[in-house]
Amino acid sequence: MPELKNDLFLRACLRQDVERTPVWMMRQAGRYLPEYRATRQRAGGFLNLCKTPELACEVSIQPVELVGVDATIMFSDILVVPEAMGMELTFDTGEGPKFPQPIRTRADVERLPVPDPEDGLGYVMAAIRLIRKELAGRVPLIGFTGSPWTLATYMIEGGGSKNYSKIKAMAFNEPETLHLLLHKLADAVAAYLNAQIANGVQAVQIFDTWGGILTTRDYREFSLQYMQRIVEQLTREHDGRRVPVILYTKGGMGWLEEIAATGCDVVGLDWTIDMDVARRRIGDKVALQGNMDPTMLYANPDRIRAEVKDILARFGHGNGHVFNLGHGITPDVPVEHAKAFIQSVKEESVAYHS
Amino acid sequence: MPELKNDLFLRACLRQDVERTPVWMMRQAGRYLPEYRATRQRAGGFLNLCKTPELACEVSIQPVELVGVDATIMFSDILVVPEAMGMELTFDTGEGPKFPQPIRTRADVERLPVPDPEDGLGYVMAAIRLIRKELAGRVPLIGFTGSPWTLATYMIEGGGSKNYSKIKAMAFNEPETLHLLLHKLADAVAAYLNAQIANGVQAVQIFDTWGGILTTRDYREFSLQYMQRIVEQLTREHDGRRVPVILYTKGGMGWLEEIAATGCDVVGLDWTIDMDVARRRIGDKVALQGNMDPTMLYANPDRIRAEVKDILARFGHGNGHVFNLGHGITPDVPVEHAKAFIQSVKEESVAYHS
Repeated sequence: MPELKNDLFLRACLRQDVERTPVWMMRQAGRYLPEYRATRQRAGGFLNLCKTPELACEVSIQPVELVGVDATIMFSDILVVPEAMGMELTFDTGEGPKFPQPIRTRADVERLPVPDPEDGLGYVMAAIRLIRKELAGRVPLIGFTGSPWTLATYMIEGGGSKNYSKIKAMAFNEPETLHLLLHKLADAVAAYLNAQIANGVQAVQIFDTWGGILTTRDYREFSLQYMQRIVEQLTREHDGRRVPVILYTKGGMGWLEEIAATGCDVVGLDWTIDMDVARRRIGDKVALQGNMDPTMLYANPDRIRAEVKDILARFGHGNGHVFNLGHGITPDVPVEHAKAFIQSVKEESVAYHS
Repeated sequence: MPELKNDLFLRACLRQDVERTPVWMMRQAGRYLPEYRATRQRAGGFLNLCKTPELACEVSIQPVELVGVDATIMFSDILVVPEAMGMELTFDTGEGPKFPQPIRTRADVERLPVPDPEDGLGYVMAAIRLIRKELAGRVPLIGFTGSPWTLATYMIEGGGSKNYSKIKAMAFNEPETLHLLLHKLADAVAAYLNAQIANGVQAVQIFDTWGGILTTRDYREFSLQYMQRIVEQLTREHDGRRVPVILYTKGGMGWLEEIAATGCDVVGLDWTIDMDVARRRIGDKVALQGNMDPTMLYANPDRIRAEVKDILARFGHGNGHVFNLGHGITPDVPVEHAKAFIQSVKEESVAYHS
């Protein structure tokens, strides 16, 4: 493998010295890019795109070349894990993901296998190897997964949900069944992330998109403890380099200290907390990733730059900041605005690193 | 008007002594009740139900008689205010609310009148008078409104929204236009609440359902300051009794201290914060309303009772707790579970008041 030419992202994750703040965007390989939409069209649908390593590689690298991000995230979907556990998964246009046969009973949970990631998710591993090859050391490659709680919401609700009535009913009335599922998912996800690392990802992020719908006690019991279980099982060094782990719970800003205490390297922030408040609460225990409001990308480039400056100033001097949005970039953002965002971080952050 | 037989709710709002903790549920006049569904059917649709005082009165009182709550909230919808400002509003089945001609330009905002609530919203006032009469002093009557920010999201997006791209773009690119709208809405809403008070509501709640999608700075600028403006304009005493004001921002648990400082009497909590943490942060400045996870009503009655006990214990001894859910009751909750919740609060809270 060639030497990394730009390892700012990895250094910032580990709170090491950098010349400027690195930046990438959650969902950066996505629909706001016309090139992405063209490749997806060619793939014949979202799931085909995930499962065709050449095309997944292509869209993963597009934001490096088109908007200039400092890290690539492998193109995939969090729901390929339950699919590899034998659950039928569909992505009909405009419908969002669906599991037509959701998990409902303890027997359903017991029946689920923990998949061998090199086998059932071999197409992800092939994509990772290809992306590393095509990147040729330009920037690091990030792997990812959904948190067990977040995966379980889709598996039990059968898709997206408004009230999460089914998984909440299971949590309250049949907690052992839910724990069995979460336990299985944590082990499946840990094996999956370790396979990603073995195949070449240089950092991993766990997306806990729905942890924020829980009470504090339920967050600890049903989400955080299983992310901790994953962190404990992960390969933390590969090819002589530490592999940073990023935990991101949307809506979890009340629990930052506890997230930071899991043993992760980086805590991902959504946009509802000020960066200075987050840094004061977390101290130098871990690095922070975030946290511009993704809808700020609807603003004009001058307004975007002012916002970037504000967030940089709130973080202040010192190491351990990976700039990002507080959630994924939305499909209708103008590409020029995404570029202006990335460029602003690159230019304005130099002053904070000397 | 007859004397109030049960004024526990009003006393708790003002942190006065009570024999037990009062309890009501956001959206308690709602679809989980078969009797509500029957009346709505009879009305021929949701908006007709809002606009027919006899039927609005009927569904407002149902939860007092059927589940035993300690307060009535007038049945209505937050979007009747923009409708009274001349915006066409539709509620097609399964579609949610829609404004077919949303606000897009400064001219659209300038054109909006501030309605005379006794005129354009006379049917709400008629319903209030009727509810007070039919209640005959059994429990107090709560009036309500949406916050200016929350109303503006629907008026600008044209309905519910996933990314709030239009209102956010206006906030970032054309803040003066949005401020003009919010200013107008604040004055319209203040006049509306004062008319509600003049016609007989004994407390008012401002629902800021979408304040939680903002950054801290934007929450202050676009939501909180306008709720404060309303609070400052409200009639705080009527018929010799203080009229408590409740502010509820879903997703606003990071800003509790600032909400409490607006001059409101009660801060509404969603379920993502522990009651003891909230009380420690707020002290005795205001009363607290909340905050059981509404999906806990999917649990069995024993589990519901255990949760009620936990929240009561976290609040502890002392005054200033109005028990409620952290958000509205959902349509598919069994009525027996709602009853079990109300009954549990009534029984278990006695121990905390002596």
